[in-house]
Amino acid sequence: MRAVTFQAPGEVLVADVPEPEISHPGDAIVRIDATGVCGSDLHIYHGRVQVEQGFTLGHEYVGTVVSIGDDVHGIAVGDRVLGCFQTACGRCYFCRRGLFHKCDSSRTFGHGATLGSLAGTQAELALVPSADLVLRKVPQGMSDEVALFAGDVMGTGYHAVLESGMRAGDTAAVLGLGPVGLCAVQVAKAAGAARVLAIDSVPERLAMAESFGALPVHLTEQDTRAAVRDATEGRGVDVCIDAVGHPDAFDLALRLTRKCGTVQAIGVYAERAQVHMGLLWIKSLHVCAGHANVLGHVDGVLAMMSAGLLDPSPLVTHHMSLEEAPDAYALYDRREALKIVLTP
Amino acid sequence: MRAVTFQAPGEVLVADVPEPEISHPGDAIVRIDATGVCGSDLHIYHGRVQVEQGFTLGHEYVGTVVSIGDDVHGIAVGDRVLGCFQTACGRCYFCRRGLFHKCDSSRTFGHGATLGSLAGTQAELALVPSADLVLRKVPQGMSDEVALFAGDVMGTGYHAVLESGMRAGDTAAVLGLGPVGLCAVQVAKAAGAARVLAIDSVPERLAMAESFGALPVHLTEQDTRAAVRDATEGRGVDVCIDAVGHPDAFDLALRLTRKCGTVQAIGVYAERAQVHMGLLWIKSLHVCAGHANVLGHVDGVLAMMSAGLLDPSPLVTHHMSLEEAPDAYALYDRREALKIVLTP
Amino acid sequence: MRAVTFQAPGEVLVADVPEPEISHPGDAIVRIDATGVCGSDLHIYHGRVQVEQGFTLGHEYVGTVVSIGDDVHGIAVGDRVLGCFQTACGRCYFCRRGLFHKCDSSRTFGHGATLGSLAGTQAELALVPSADLVLRKVPQGMSDEVALFAGDVMGTGYHAVLESGMRAGDTAAVLGLGPVGLCAVQVAKAAGAARVLAIDSVPERLAMAESFGALPVHLTEQDTRAAVRDATEGRGVDVCIDAVGHPDAFDLALRLTRKCGTVQAIGVYAERAQVHMGLLWIKSLHVCAGHANVLGHVDGVLAMMSAGLLDPSPLVTHHMSLEEAPDAYALYDRREALKIVLTP
Amino acid sequence: MRAVTFQAPGEVLVADVPEPEISHPGDAIVRIDATGVCGSDLHIYHGRVQVEQGFTLGHEYVGTVVSIGDDVHGIAVGDRVLGCFQTACGRCYFCRRGLFHKCDSSRTFGHGATLGSLAGTQAELALVPSADLVLRKVPQGMSDEVALFAGDVMGTGYHAVLESGMRAGDTAAVLGLGPVGLCAVQVAKAAGAARVLAIDSVPERLAMAESFGALPVHLTEQDTRAAVRDATEGRGVDVCIDAVGHPDAFDLALRLTRKCGTVQAIGVYAERAQVHMGLLWIKSLHVCAGHANVLGHVDGVLAMMSAGLLDPSPLVTHHMSLEEAPDAYALYDRREALKIVLTP
Repeated sequence: MRAVTFQAPGEVLVADVPEPEISHPGDAIVRIDATGVCGSDLHIYHGRVQVEQGFTLGHEYVGTVVSIGDDVHGIAVGDRVLGCFQTACGRCYFCRRGLFHKCDSSRTFGHGATLGSLAGTQAELALVPSADLVLRKVPQGMSDEVALFAGDVMGTGYHAVLESGMRAGDTAAVLGLGPVGLCAVQVAKAAGAARVLAIDSVPERLAMAESFGALPVHLTEQDTRAAVRDATEGRGVDVCIDAVGHPDAFDLALRLTRKCGTVQAIGVYAERAQVHMGLLWIKSLHVCAGHANVLGHVDGVLAMMSAGLLDPSPLVTHHMSLEEAPDAYALYDRREALKIVLTP
Repeated sequence: MRAVTFQAPGEVLVADVPEPEISHPGDAIVRIDATGVCGSDLHIYHGRVQVEQGFTLGHEYVGTVVSIGDDVHGIAVGDRVLGCFQTACGRCYFCRRGLFHKCDSSRTFGHGATLGSLAGTQAELALVPSADLVLRKVPQGMSDEVALFAGDVMGTGYHAVLESGMRAGDTAAVLGLGPVGLCAVQVAKAAGAARVLAIDSVPERLAMAESFGALPVHLTEQDTRAAVRDATEGRGVDVCIDAVGHPDAFDLALRLTRKCGTVQAIGVYAERAQVHMGLLWIKSLHVCAGHANVLGHVDGVLAMMSAGLLDPSPLVTHHMSLEEAPDAYALYDRREALKIVLTP
Repeated sequence: MRAVTFQAPGEVLVADVPEPEISHPGDAIVRIDATGVCGSDLHIYHGRVQVEQGFTLGHEYVGTVVSIGDDVHGIAVGDRVLGCFQTACGRCYFCRRGLFHKCDSSRTFGHGATLGSLAGTQAELALVPSADLVLRKVPQGMSDEVALFAGDVMGTGYHAVLESGMRAGDTAAVLGLGPVGLCAVQVAKAAGAARVLAIDSVPERLAMAESFGALPVHLTEQDTRAAVRDATEGRGVDVCIDAVGHPDAFDLALRLTRKCGTVQAIGVYAERAQVHMGLLWIKSLHVCAGHANVLGHVDGVLAMMSAGLLDPSPLVTHHMSLEEAPDAYALYDRREALKIVLTP
Repeated sequence: MRAVTFQAPGEVLVADVPEPEISHPGDAIVRIDATGVCGSDLHIYHGRVQVEQGFTLGHEYVGTVVSIGDDVHGIAVGDRVLGCFQTACGRCYFCRRGLFHKCDSSRTFGHGATLGSLAGTQAELALVPSADLVLRKVPQGMSDEVALFAGDVMGTGYHAVLESGMRAGDTAAVLGLGPVGLCAVQVAKAAGAARVLAIDSVPERLAMAESFGALPVHLTEQDTRAAVRDATEGRGVDVCIDAVGHPDAFDLALRLTRKCGTVQAIGVYAERAQVHMGLLWIKSLHVCAGHANVLGHVDGVLAMMSAGLLDPSPLVTHHMSLEEAPDAYALYDRREALKIVLTP
């Protein structure tokens, strides 16, 4: 079958690879109908995250079940499904507490040996372990391009908001309006935020956030702290979502958040950084961090997307064929796209 | 000054009563601009809740501060304010835990000696004790008729949803589409419920709930349990709000709610009733009950109303003058109104 | 192999039954070292819960793994294990939320066709499905008779306290000092209750609760409400655990609990009952109900028992051989025992 | 009256100062029976926290009410009381949410103009504003030296544990065994921690923690990470309390805590620091920070101390007279004392 494979930093190749086979009773095989290119794929493309040469990429996907193992109960051959970007065992210490994202034997699609050697979904077929936990039927009437957000980007926006403890009536700020930040804006609004301040420096992204109901604030051309003070009687926001993953964003988040508020660091951090611990301490802030528990939240995300409360379709800027993947990666790398959907 | 006073079951009279005076440094006096007639007033009108003859009624109000005690800090003379239906001391065991509705020395406006001998707000002036806790400035641009919902009916809808633990993406049912039920529908939708089933037997109320985004279900002409099953893959709703206060409603709530879900009994119960404890137990349900903590939630309600996420104005069916109060009570008693706003 | 089988109300028989076999890759077979006789067994013995003639009884057990399926990871042949009284699939809607006790395909040991046709553990061998979720290794140094409480009675006491939201420093009351009530007393004390009032009418049980650190209150010879008032500055307890399962107990729980407190109905309810809904409502109480989520709590229970913070051994009043099961049931039926441990 | 006053870094003087007077109806005046010297006093003594020359120090106190304003309800003249180290208004945005430690107009005893110009309690008399919120009656039978811990050091230990979300059965680590760390050890044990690892480098403090039920781990002579692994099946602790307030402690806390666990930074941070954000992120940790909400927790602390579940008396190493304050400060500065109690 055809699949998008990593070759070297800056180089992906659509190549013939062996078809996957069921090897465990909990497995399913899905024929991919649509698969996304994501910011995480860029980390691999840039060589910052290392995968083996020839490894199949991709972890956002919608498709049709073509084969299942003996111990899969929730879905059947022929079901139209979407999947989560990682797997979980359902039985370890963390899974038993619903912390599927920290499963002791989790595997991530398309991320090479480091994350479990699980071939990616930018391919004609994908093997899905723990199919009962990882896959969900696509609700009636939902398009492929909407559905594939549930298992990754919208799931991440949902996690960011729900795990922050934000309540209806609160004011939130979202720093960084890439796909995750924009999804977080949608979720915060849909979950009842009275106001969402959306902060970035790209006018198109600010405009999209505004169209989702947020108050756009330009990072450098406006005074972000003044904007937050004006919106909160001087207190600061109840919840600040850092969808950037850079020390400057985290520092700004500490400043924009009210006493006893929450900073949700959903943007990726991988290194040491200077943090104003004094500010964190004197304001009695809460910090949560880490990637999303997409398996734990996918039902809620699907329910809201199905009801039309969340709609990621404006984020889809490009549709391309799987064979055009090298162009898609290059285009995404030039930051000319928010979300590219590939069709095998 | 003129005030609506209780005379006997079925009889209210607009009479001259003495003007209130500041007697404690935490007091404020508010000149009433608008005041509502509420379902609780009907309990008094019917004689089910007893108040003294001549007692001033009313507990929903918007107005202007005309005088304050020495120890009021949050508001000033001239401020346009709305108030909560009850007071709280801010210092007792319950207030210290934010449970203002269970304050050991709480007083309720317009409910006679039983609830603290605090004259009602269907009058030209009202004395407001603990003004810092009870009053809030009306946000810029909010009409009187919207603002007066914050301190009672919408506050109750908000409490019902928020205290139930409902999360964005959940499915809720609301039993009983009086003003509180309709407000609960609005709050549930605004807080991210994927679906809200609104159950009643009055077509106009069902239509209004539908206009708020709910799925209307006729109590007797439709199969409520089937409707819930269809909406929840057979599981039952995550949260069921009983805004009726009748054993039949509570019983239906137990049946409509999924295992480990929550039944929120916001409707008034005053007596013993048959309860299917076996059903409650085998489904591991949670039950919460009691009237709303309006003081604890008024900031969130105001923020959402101010942002346009909640809008009680469709519930206002009648505007009348204070002098017309006897007609207003009679009309409300005939169930021809959802909310009547009186203007002194 | 030998097993305790149900024959008719009032009659159990130790008989030869076929040995179990692994039929699913998640199964394990455990050679039973000790198994308890529990209050739930009495429901069957009395015919109130119906099981098939010849069905093997029992659901409390400690033993040694003698065989495992291909998909069991957490344990190995030769491990000394204890188990929970029910199974869970780990993948359904409820399991994914950690609500293992409400698993859509849960099976309970020794309860006949109604609860999943899973042979009981009062036998030489037991088949344990979903072994990864159901079994745990017995911590070093823990006796059989202590360990077998983790998967049922102590797990129930732990659930009752932890799921009630009780906090360190709170005051709790426990109604009914059978094995579950006594375990709840231990857990409440170990979890930091400043005071635990233990209420029953059996002097020996009151004395045991007192030895666990509770304040004993005789149900009929003392004034329970006065005792609670004295212990709580007149407020009522923060949490009241009804370990009885009778309308009178529930009614007393409503009266003993403070405003906004929690009534935890862990005792079994199967029918309709008169409930003082007015009291529930005016006090704004929370009610939780249902049997324990033992799978979800077994790690915490084991950690506390292993540290010596919980010690059910005083509850073990009798050790008997499996062959003496008919005598054991008769003795338990005469209420002469708190916990009988059978050894095959 | 006599009072301990700040003169210059390293110099305190017991001097005659004017007696306090009631100036607000919520005030009380307390005749001090015992007052502590605390680590926070040392910050002033060292000049790191600046107060005016001649300002009265101290914020831990037990005494007798000698005078009250017209609007104090919870206590009366003659009551033996203890107090919290800071005041709160009970009415602002933060107080209404129970976040008394972040009250917009909070004042701290003995900390000069920066924290509200409220004279300290190392004196014969102290003025206590918001007396209803700040003071509590000393429970029958509780000694002065125990009671004065409730409003500061033990309240801080209690906050650290309770606000971390630690549950009975969890494993906790406490870094830094000064008075706050040792109190946190006691609270964690009393709240049901299965294991508490107590980490420091001072043998006497490790021995005291061990006497409170903790597993002592020497910071430099033992391998702290190995000790945590051994105690947690390799996972890390559920909750790690940093009672040090130094970047090295915070870094160690990030390493010792399990995935999705909580780091509670109760130790004081005032500046920027290097933080391993990558570790925080990849482990999906929660961080809480800031000083304790002592007003919000004092009831729970008193209940547990009164029941004997918490006993700070072993921490009292010295009793001295108020006149000996200069010696007391010098001795505390030489780290020869854990807690010094001064008697006027």
